[in-house]
Amino acid sequence: MAEPIPIIGGTGALGYGLAVRLARAGRTIVIGSRKPERAQEAAERLRETVSGADVEGLENGEAAQRGPVVFLTVPFRAQSETLTNLKEALADGQLLVDCTVPLAAAISGKATRTLGVWQGSAAQQAQEMAPDGVTVISALHTVSAPALAGDEPLDEDVLVCGDRKADKKRVAELIELIDGLRPVNAGPLEGSRIVEPLTALLIGINSRYKTHAGIRITGLPGDDHWS
Amino acid sequence: MAEPIPIIGGTGALGYGLAVRLARAGRTIVIGSRKPERAQEAAERLRETVSGADVEGLENGEAAQRGPVVFLTVPFRAQSETLTNLKEALADGQLLVDCTVPLAAAISGKATRTLGVWQGSAAQQAQEMAPDGVTVISALHTVSAPALAGDEPLDEDVLVCGDRKADKKRVAELIELIDGLRPVNAGPLEGSRIVEPLTALLIGINSRYKTHAGIRITGLPGDDHWS
Repeated sequence: MAEPIPIIGGTGALGYGLAVRLARAGRTIVIGSRKPERAQEAAERLRETVSGADVEGLENGEAAQRGPVVFLTVPFRAQSETLTNLKEALADGQLLVDCTVPLAAAISGKATRTLGVWQGSAAQQAQEMAPDGVTVISALHTVSAPALAGDEPLDEDVLVCGDRKADKKRVAELIELIDGLRPVNAGPLEGSRIVEPLTALLIGINSRYKTHAGIRITGLPGDDHWS
Repeated sequence: MAEPIPIIGGTGALGYGLAVRLARAGRTIVIGSRKPERAQEAAERLRETVSGADVEGLENGEAAQRGPVVFLTVPFRAQSETLTNLKEALADGQLLVDCTVPLAAAISGKATRTLGVWQGSAAQQAQEMAPDGVTVISALHTVSAPALAGDEPLDEDVLVCGDRKADKKRVAELIELIDGLRPVNAGPLEGSRIVEPLTALLIGINSRYKTHAGIRITGLPGDDHWS
């Protein structure tokens, strides 16, 4: 049986959208939130949205212990505090998929601009803060949260950064469960410095073109890079 | 009759590829180089590649005076010196389309990493250095130079940054002359901070997937944003 998928910050727009799509794919979801009652409410909402969804809502630390690949979908301003709180919960061997983006909106600036992060990117900050043996992969920055939570088919790429292909492959296999998303190997974790700001670019394009834009890498060979 | 299109650094891979495609579209090209004899050689080569091509090769400063929209396609390590040399050549009202990318390769580092530019991006450095009344637009960072110089059909987007839509539209109209390229309004010039590093990302993807990758923005409405 497939392992449950914890989504830390799963009550937020991106995390909830991810929960919707992975539940539709038949996977067991554990929605994490700072407050367990909010996580339970989101789990209830997910059961109403996706009939037959196998989902529970737990406090973040408990949620994080439920599966080997943990998604972190909190806003950037909460990333550091959340990781501090997860220090005892995350364990050697887990993968932490960081989806946070250092938008300037975190400090009441524009969502079309980013902040400079000392470590180079939010993902690298996550790697610095994660317990020993926990490997950070970054992904899903360019997928629109409303599009993910909606019913429309998706048709875009997910740029996946991480230092080992084998780890990225495990995350890619989860992304491939979602119809219309293609995971692309976007290089080492430091590449997240380039990928994270794409969210800010797309937010600008969304406002200019009145859409939920995404990214596609053109020219890739048809065969599966991950197999 | 359509104005000639000066391409500063048109002997380099990206500039020459651009010259090939715009010459094929029937436009008059002025290839600029630091050394006029190299520009003339490239013009000769272009005439052999594109039959009937209307092209001449001139020293950069002379070339820059030949048309209202000037492409700057020199490597980043030559950008600053080139702009200093063009101070007397560029004139009020011209558009300068900066295509340079601050790859770390400029200082013998990796082409999959970028340098921090004081002004925020190569395009903003160009704007600071350009004479008064010359407006910088940035574009073409994500189009593979070998793909551009080749015969294969293109099928990708060009992210265009600049502070006024009317200026970006003039550049977009030139990009649209090239089959398979779609110009996308990527916001103000400062957005070049996000777009320029995509070259480094794509260079990594090219090496990993053995291809000439490009970028496509998904979810854009079908109607022409520029009209």
